[in-house]
Amino acid sequence: MSDVTQFISKRAQSRTSSHFANVPSDKPPAGFKPHPKPLLLSYGTPNDGFFPIDSIDVNLVNFPFEHQSKGGHLNGSASEPKANGHAKEENSNSIHIARHTKTPNSLDLSRGLQYGPVPGLDPLLEFTKEFIAKTHKPAYDDWTSILSTGASDGLNKACDAILDPGDVVLVEEFTFSPFLRFVNNVGGVSVPIKIDLSSDSNGLDLDYLQNLLDNWSKEYPNLPKPKALYTISTGQNPTGFTQTIEFRRKIYKLAEEHNFVIIEDDPYGYLTLPKYDASRFSSNNKVDPAELKNNLTIEDYLFNHLTPSYLELDTTGRVIRVETFSKLFAPGLRLGFVIAHAKVIDVIKNYAEVANRGASGLAQTVVNNVIREHWGGLDGWLNWILKMRATYSHRKDLLLHSIYQSDAFKKGLVDVIDPKAGMFVTFKVKFLDPAQGKIAADEVIPTMKQLLWKIISHGVLVVPGYNMTVDQKFSLERSNFFRLCYAPLNNDDDIIESGKRLTDAVLEFHDKGNKF
Amino acid sequence: MSDVTQFISKRAQSRTSSHFANVPSDKPPAGFKPHPKPLLLSYGTPNDGFFPIDSIDVNLVNFPFEHQSKGGHLNGSASEPKANGHAKEENSNSIHIARHTKTPNSLDLSRGLQYGPVPGLDPLLEFTKEFIAKTHKPAYDDWTSILSTGASDGLNKACDAILDPGDVVLVEEFTFSPFLRFVNNVGGVSVPIKIDLSSDSNGLDLDYLQNLLDNWSKEYPNLPKPKALYTISTGQNPTGFTQTIEFRRKIYKLAEEHNFVIIEDDPYGYLTLPKYDASRFSSNNKVDPAELKNNLTIEDYLFNHLTPSYLELDTTGRVIRVETFSKLFAPGLRLGFVIAHAKVIDVIKNYAEVANRGASGLAQTVVNNVIREHWGGLDGWLNWILKMRATYSHRKDLLLHSIYQSDAFKKGLVDVIDPKAGMFVTFKVKFLDPAQGKIAADEVIPTMKQLLWKIISHGVLVVPGYNMTVDQKFSLERSNFFRLCYAPLNNDDDIIESGKRLTDAVLEFHDKGNKF
Repeated sequence: MSDVTQFISKRAQSRTSSHFANVPSDKPPAGFKPHPKPLLLSYGTPNDGFFPIDSIDVNLVNFPFEHQSKGGHLNGSASEPKANGHAKEENSNSIHIARHTKTPNSLDLSRGLQYGPVPGLDPLLEFTKEFIAKTHKPAYDDWTSILSTGASDGLNKACDAILDPGDVVLVEEFTFSPFLRFVNNVGGVSVPIKIDLSSDSNGLDLDYLQNLLDNWSKEYPNLPKPKALYTISTGQNPTGFTQTIEFRRKIYKLAEEHNFVIIEDDPYGYLTLPKYDASRFSSNNKVDPAELKNNLTIEDYLFNHLTPSYLELDTTGRVIRVETFSKLFAPGLRLGFVIAHAKVIDVIKNYAEVANRGASGLAQTVVNNVIREHWGGLDGWLNWILKMRATYSHRKDLLLHSIYQSDAFKKGLVDVIDPKAGMFVTFKVKFLDPAQGKIAADEVIPTMKQLLWKIISHGVLVVPGYNMTVDQKFSLERSNFFRLCYAPLNNDDDIIESGKRLTDAVLEFHDKGNKF
Repeated sequence: MSDVTQFISKRAQSRTSSHFANVPSDKPPAGFKPHPKPLLLSYGTPNDGFFPIDSIDVNLVNFPFEHQSKGGHLNGSASEPKANGHAKEENSNSIHIARHTKTPNSLDLSRGLQYGPVPGLDPLLEFTKEFIAKTHKPAYDDWTSILSTGASDGLNKACDAILDPGDVVLVEEFTFSPFLRFVNNVGGVSVPIKIDLSSDSNGLDLDYLQNLLDNWSKEYPNLPKPKALYTISTGQNPTGFTQTIEFRRKIYKLAEEHNFVIIEDDPYGYLTLPKYDASRFSSNNKVDPAELKNNLTIEDYLFNHLTPSYLELDTTGRVIRVETFSKLFAPGLRLGFVIAHAKVIDVIKNYAEVANRGASGLAQTVVNNVIREHWGGLDGWLNWILKMRATYSHRKDLLLHSIYQSDAFKKGLVDVIDPKAGMFVTFKVKFLDPAQGKIAADEVIPTMKQLLWKIISHGVLVVPGYNMTVDQKFSLERSNFFRLCYAPLNNDDDIIESGKRLTDAVLEFHDKGNKF
């Protein structure tokens, strides 16, 4: 393996880990014997007896939206949520987190509410490694994990670890735009890479990328060759594209040739989605819940559905994978993790000692114990993911179904890209595509803005692609789409209605223009 | 008020807040009407129906260490903790956090486990403002609060807000040393200020500071005049000193004259401690728990015990106060807050959008609801603080009592400084004070290291002051002390025993030297 240190920024290399030790660093004098039961008058850590919380009971559901419907539906119903009684009294799906426990791999409050190690509390940190070893095992040995306060935190730390001022990062032209601020914060420069928006695309435009790298000094004479590529390779945000393994091999080969790091952001790639299947929908738009039962085995899921990570191709320690518990467990935990070469994780740890000292121990404790105690560990967590996946799959298909049934779609005014993973759908406004010759490139965004007002007036909120660009001018010709997300709505009826409102708005805009 | 912007670093000023909006920023077209019930296909926020946690029960104690002893003791007993049954079954001291609630100022899981605003969830953020308005109200109006992931995070963010590369921060010569890394991380320079280690001291050596500021260009010809002073003004870490209000007025006057910012770090200043009173201890070292009842009223505490913050003197928006829930609630929450002028808080918010996106919503929810629902809000929180204060006061006095009874103390070999607040005691090794003429300044630290091995072999861990310096060479002559912390030990007996072991070790070292 080449020296991973070459990828690490000077800033990150210059930081050291340190704390005020209470044992001298030099050798103990002759005859020194450590005491068998030392008493601590040292660190400013309050005894757990000072914590006002004696224990916590966490009451769980068996599947997403269970609280709305006990009947086995995989998605919400339009009926009101049940009254807010104590769920605990109604089911035995609880875990108890005591002040002290001796159960191995469980966390108690004396640890979870205490100061903890910056990289994360051991049981959860170990779990993230077991999980990656099972799902996306790197192609080398010296990798490890560190907890973060979510994907944004992981990405910011990856930027700090890799980028010095002036360093270039290649970024998909439509992207999770907060990333641009992380690059900017360390003085880096984001350079957009075209996305191929055709239906069978891998997202990233490989020809464009290859050509750019081969002719870098011609295209960007004032910039150094790229230090890194940032890619949301599965269920890309905002376009929803997923790169095949064959495609990833080609990108990884380019990374080796041109010696750049790959920052792989994968917040919801575990939500793999089967292709839309019209036969599952009855004429009244309703779907038989029995159809939605998740009948994948974990093995089938892992080997035939989950797209391999760049980690699995990585032989040189150049991949930094950023994960989060936000989408699969809950965003408010502020909990995620980063997987990379141990040397990269080490500089991330040093930065974490400065930048936020890691994730909440309370969040770590709840997640660790729910996964390990209640769900039984790795397979239990994967089973929960399969249930989430089935629910998202159902929602995605409902939204597509609603759009496919619309007049706007049937008249060819709009199209959607059926995503293979994640939570986003590209909704293309075909008559605003400059490639069709009816609109000039510089008219796309102004017209899309007018259309957006129409859509808002119809009662749907969507995110325009042009608001998620690296450089709006670079992407003018490809800005005729909105990002749709089927994650936030309450139930099936609202999802169907949202697709209807959206397509009605586009049809009205097409037919009558921007009159209100 | 002068322009607060002058205090803000160029780096911090250059950041902007941004996110991918789903509503155009320009004016809506004529005739546009917003929809009464818009449906969200926009943000990537999972519906709370995806969260596996349906509700959480938080089971509380009535006073610190209650779980060890139901008899009203204010500190732990040496007996084993009670068996780890479900505390919930034994008392009604629980709060229920439901998925949805309509109780005002309570947080439910649909908010607490969801993405939240970077500055913090409203009810808790508002609470921190109410709390400061009651305890340490700034002397101007345009102040506000932002949540952090603890005091370290708050301090790092304060450094980012204020310091450009090359900027100087004055730092107490013995200090919370991670702060030095926060300064270093933004390219700042820490300059030590002498601490007066005599018993009736305010900590900071005012004469030294004044003289330094008046002769800055002579003392530090290559450094610009200081941009900020970092001070742990109450229960200083590691020395335990508390600055009187009169002293603070003098420091604030210097800040005005020399135009520097005051970063006030106050993690445990609410733990005000009465002077040691020998009469409370019976001959067998035991203390009557009835003596320890906290009989302060909140008003008495606020007006006669709590030392005013620099905020209360601040008329120019030059004070940044950093607080934390770590010591008063629990460190593992990773939850704190920063109080400063609104313009300073605004740039801290912009940095937080980059650096970690704020505190865990789960931690915020638990703390908010425990304080507001269970304890009844502000006065309930202050009552809990009074109980913590009584327990710490008891522990401090026990430790001092144990030391005062020792032969080492009676022979004048050691001394302790009785702290007025916080959790730290300065334990001076008097015969290693160069001012007494028996040891050269450059022999202090090597000898203290030898003594430390002796102390460790006797079964106590303490932190040597020389490990918490800005610059060891600057502080050689004042390095003959250890920091003692009475927070971590389990019970009274261990505290008494730790003082005994420590003084025995010093006596043995004094009499027999470093032989084992």
